[in-house]
Amino acid sequence: MTLEQLQTQFEAFKAKKLSLDMSRGKPSAAQLDLSNELLDTVTSNDYLSSTGAETRNYGGLDGLPATKQLFKDFLEVSSVEEVVIGGNASLTIMHDIISRGITHGMCDSYQPWGKEKIKFICPVPGYDRHFSICEHFGIDMIPVACTEDGPDMDVVEKLVANDSSIKGIWIVPKYSNPTGLSCSDEVVNRLSMMNTAAEDFRIFWDNAYAVHHLSEDQDQLKNILTTCKEFGNDNRPFILCSTSKITFAGAGVAAVGGSTDNMDWYRKHLFISTIGPDKLNQERHNRFFKNIEGLYEHMKKHAALLKPRFVKTLSILEEELGGTNLATWTKPKGGYFISFNVPEGCAKRVVALSAEAGVKLTGAGATYPYKKDPKNSNIRLAPSCPTIDEIEQAMRIVCLATKIAALEMKASVAV
Amino acid sequence: MTLEQLQTQFEAFKAKKLSLDMSRGKPSAAQLDLSNELLDTVTSNDYLSSTGAETRNYGGLDGLPATKQLFKDFLEVSSVEEVVIGGNASLTIMHDIISRGITHGMCDSYQPWGKEKIKFICPVPGYDRHFSICEHFGIDMIPVACTEDGPDMDVVEKLVANDSSIKGIWIVPKYSNPTGLSCSDEVVNRLSMMNTAAEDFRIFWDNAYAVHHLSEDQDQLKNILTTCKEFGNDNRPFILCSTSKITFAGAGVAAVGGSTDNMDWYRKHLFISTIGPDKLNQERHNRFFKNIEGLYEHMKKHAALLKPRFVKTLSILEEELGGTNLATWTKPKGGYFISFNVPEGCAKRVVALSAEAGVKLTGAGATYPYKKDPKNSNIRLAPSCPTIDEIEQAMRIVCLATKIAALEMKASVAV
Repeated sequence: MTLEQLQTQFEAFKAKKLSLDMSRGKPSAAQLDLSNELLDTVTSNDYLSSTGAETRNYGGLDGLPATKQLFKDFLEVSSVEEVVIGGNASLTIMHDIISRGITHGMCDSYQPWGKEKIKFICPVPGYDRHFSICEHFGIDMIPVACTEDGPDMDVVEKLVANDSSIKGIWIVPKYSNPTGLSCSDEVVNRLSMMNTAAEDFRIFWDNAYAVHHLSEDQDQLKNILTTCKEFGNDNRPFILCSTSKITFAGAGVAAVGGSTDNMDWYRKHLFISTIGPDKLNQERHNRFFKNIEGLYEHMKKHAALLKPRFVKTLSILEEELGGTNLATWTKPKGGYFISFNVPEGCAKRVVALSAEAGVKLTGAGATYPYKKDPKNSNIRLAPSCPTIDEIEQAMRIVCLATKIAALEMKASVAV
Repeated sequence: MTLEQLQTQFEAFKAKKLSLDMSRGKPSAAQLDLSNELLDTVTSNDYLSSTGAETRNYGGLDGLPATKQLFKDFLEVSSVEEVVIGGNASLTIMHDIISRGITHGMCDSYQPWGKEKIKFICPVPGYDRHFSICEHFGIDMIPVACTEDGPDMDVVEKLVANDSSIKGIWIVPKYSNPTGLSCSDEVVNRLSMMNTAAEDFRIFWDNAYAVHHLSEDQDQLKNILTTCKEFGNDNRPFILCSTSKITFAGAGVAAVGGSTDNMDWYRKHLFISTIGPDKLNQERHNRFFKNIEGLYEHMKKHAALLKPRFVKTLSILEEELGGTNLATWTKPKGGYFISFNVPEGCAKRVVALSAEAGVKLTGAGATYPYKKDPKNSNIRLAPSCPTIDEIEQAMRIVCLATKIAALEMKASVAV
């Protein structure tokens, strides 16, 4: 089709004055409904913990015992001492760990991170909120490209071996944001064993989509803490998770896991900033899931809602752009996102055109440090919230926008 | 009575093998029961906010509109822009403000606080958790004695006028921890208008007991934000509160108030560390209280439980130590504590003797920076949790311990 023909189609879409949103990794209302019964689990006459402990008063700094047990299983650490339960957001835990690194240093730092100019490795494309934390604290970000198996380890190994100011790496190891892909065993091994010039190097293992499979066909992730311990790097990983995309995005429970030294360090800092967490909400979660098997079962209900949305998104991409060489995209087995790569130089235009026709996408560049995608090519697609019909409409528009942007660029190059 | 006679009495108490606790400012189970209905306000089929907004998903960084309205009234600020709703603990908000001060500085700092050695003024006796935050961040603490009207302002004014490294002061302005006394209008005026060498000086106005009266005979507190604004020091106060001692100590709602510049600064930092707060718990509080009048009414039920405990504590003190010149104590109209001063050099011994006889008190020294009471004289009494009978027994022992410690000291001086 000619550019003119595409533009005619585009005008027809615009005339519909649609308002569609594929920008946010938010659970849909139907997904939130799956956990509504959690709201009834704790009531005015039934609120004590399973061991009869008071849940309404101060105390219990690192969580109710049953909640720690649940998250021990979730995080796949070896004891409840390797777990601390947080508030409603793992993002807050990650922020706080880094903030405490800046002001005090890690448990094995020789000085606070804030005493020198430090750097983090940022696999790209990645999660904008990770990058925002680095930017906020003036931590230099070194982007490293992802392969299908995780970050390019040849590059990572060289960087960390030679620069002691590199103190950390962000990893979303399973069904990554935005690629939806998972780290291979080899990547887990190499991350665990690599020599780092910094003795207080940390992996921020943000396992946000640990149990967020779309079907029985699932990625398996090698245990990072066990593997790090094998190589004597016990303190290397902080493992993060939350129930934000399992129960309620605003009112879930977050947790962090890691070596006892790391967790004792975290508890020591936590003691300064709080008398204790919201144990009533922990108890709601204990009762709702009962145990980790209950949580796994619950996730199947999410999968039933999410899978058709991913299938629809991918089928429109295939139908509209398959075989055109205009774009590539990932085909995740879980998580919340599809990573969509349009011709170099076109991402911003595709996002802008989509917006013109009523489709809100995540900003182009958001998946890169400082919001700068050097190739201006990557777009994150988030199919969880819209209905199947909305996805169909939105994706037709995104694909059309891609074709238009590609032809526009070709035309301008030709001139 | 002779020391020997007192010791005989003491041995009789010890033989009872009591286990009593007057150490913690915790609500009693009966107080927590007052809010149990809050647990039933939000259910699986009734969870939207009063405006129909989704409470279960991400978003609403600084709180639900109705919650902001409630806390606007609670904090007595002039608009909802002057309020940010936090998690379950005002201690966390205070910690985070100081942490952000260290790494980034206040909205009007010329450099981060962490770039220089800074100091805080700590009115004494005061709250140990405030002092812990300072100690944690290496902030030097300057103790300033309290009068019945608040901190000794002659001393405070001189200090802040001449030392630009003094960046803050802790104040529990109403029914203070541990004195139970409140700042007079004159103290509020002088704090608001005083010249500070530091342009980014802050008052941490921890109004933890703002509505925690024991009866209709109440202290009135002049509005700190309004007064600061009158003198052009709009950004001086951060006003803190929570419902920890109103609803549930672990599962309440905290909030911070202040100038729009301060709140915008806080929101900017908050945006980095979270996607949003637990709005379901905010909604529970909105429904439970309905409005600020509902909250005030609720506090009368707490007063009914707390007042007899204060009355009993004070009556035993009067009965055992009145007119002896051995001790002085405060007679608060609200709050959670009584400040009890034993003869200089005796506080640690009184706490130790009480513990020997089965009465746990807050550690002597806890009410001073670095846990060092230079006079070894102040003890914090917390009557909220024990029953009236337990208070009677515990206070008999504390008073006996005071008499013994005083006589022991006299004997050792005589030798």
